[in-house]
Amino acid sequence: MKFYDCTTAPSPRRVRIFLAEKGISIPTAQVDLRNGEQFSDAFRAINPDCTVPALQLDDGTVIGDAIAICQYLEELHPEPPLIGSTPQERAVVAALNRGIERDGFFAAMDVLRNTTAGLKGRALPGPHDYEQIPDLAERGRKRLEHFLRDLDRRLSGRAFVAGDRYTMADISALIVMDFASRLKLAVPEEYTNLRRWYAAVSARPSAKA
Amino acid sequence: MKFYDCTTAPSPRRVRIFLAEKGISIPTAQVDLRNGEQFSDAFRAINPDCTVPALQLDDGTVIGDAIAICQYLEELHPEPPLIGSTPQERAVVAALNRGIERDGFFAAMDVLRNTTAGLKGRALPGPHDYEQIPDLAERGRKRLEHFLRDLDRRLSGRAFVAGDRYTMADISALIVMDFASRLKLAVPEEYTNLRRWYAAVSARPSAKA
Repeated sequence: MKFYDCTTAPSPRRVRIFLAEKGISIPTAQVDLRNGEQFSDAFRAINPDCTVPALQLDDGTVIGDAIAICQYLEELHPEPPLIGSTPQERAVVAALNRGIERDGFFAAMDVLRNTTAGLKGRALPGPHDYEQIPDLAERGRKRLEHFLRDLDRRLSGRAFVAGDRYTMADISALIVMDFASRLKLAVPEEYTNLRRWYAAVSARPSAKA
Repeated sequence: MKFYDCTTAPSPRRVRIFLAEKGISIPTAQVDLRNGEQFSDAFRAINPDCTVPALQLDDGTVIGDAIAICQYLEELHPEPPLIGSTPQERAVVAALNRGIERDGFFAAMDVLRNTTAGLKGRALPGPHDYEQIPDLAERGRKRLEHFLRDLDRRLSGRAFVAGDRYTMADISALIVMDFASRLKLAVPEEYTNLRRWYAAVSARPSAKA
């Protein structure tokens, strides 16, 4: 197995934290996104989508998506469960995770990719070029504000996003929070549930991954 | 179990086709999206996200996401496998499905929600209101054109999206194709792989769901 990573990018960090929580290590190759290594012929041959993370299995098969990689690793290494131990737990965490991705992660990506000067003409990852849309960055900020408020409410009376257990949904939410902070989006003082949860998940050794 | 559906919406149709392929039937309630029933207090109590599909389990738990619902149903009814029978198959199909959703489904949603007069101020599903962004609709059309071309290439030498087996990735791709046709996006004549595949998947009885 070989894990294609980029230490500065938020998407593969989801997998790195997942691996750290599981206590698994996989031979890793860094892909230099800042210098366009994802568009090299060598990397295109591995992942035609030109994105990381990607996990190459021993038979050559490539899984080119962070969540699919985590689901695969959970099946191979069920303990500790970061998705769930029953079909119902897995479905609940998958749905929560997808909501966080849609309302938080994609919103943050919209802000970053539609405002960063170095990403002009590259407003979406992948092999195709798209121009930046300033209104989309502005919408992304509003969405992130809603996301923080909704997450604070969800965390009222819950230790973690899914309840009393740390899961993949916490990993995704942590990534969004750190992304939002990079985008200079402040977390209002009154979001006390969110602040308590964030302090707890950031203090876990895996958060350094 | 109770399935919350809306027969005119593309997202719950993914679950309906999945159920038809599995030969499962679940008690179903229609949510009248055109008349705003998703924002009623009664439905908010079921799914605060104000979206369909949603699957309510017998203990009251609600899974409010199409793909999480399909993963749950696959675990309860493994045959015929529409995701996969091994961790590797499941991961490959999940990754393909997510790519189709990102590059096709969300692109089509961007076109629909940012151009439809009746969706002014409602450019995203969910409980929050966002204004339409005309440039995003235009980008969505370009993305859909790329999606069709990429899918045609992928289907060269493959009966189905994942290979020789019909999977959830075919369901998602079929939904995008029908969505694109509703948006008056023509499939170029020369995309012969895509046309062959589309004829085959649309002819399955499940496509009527």
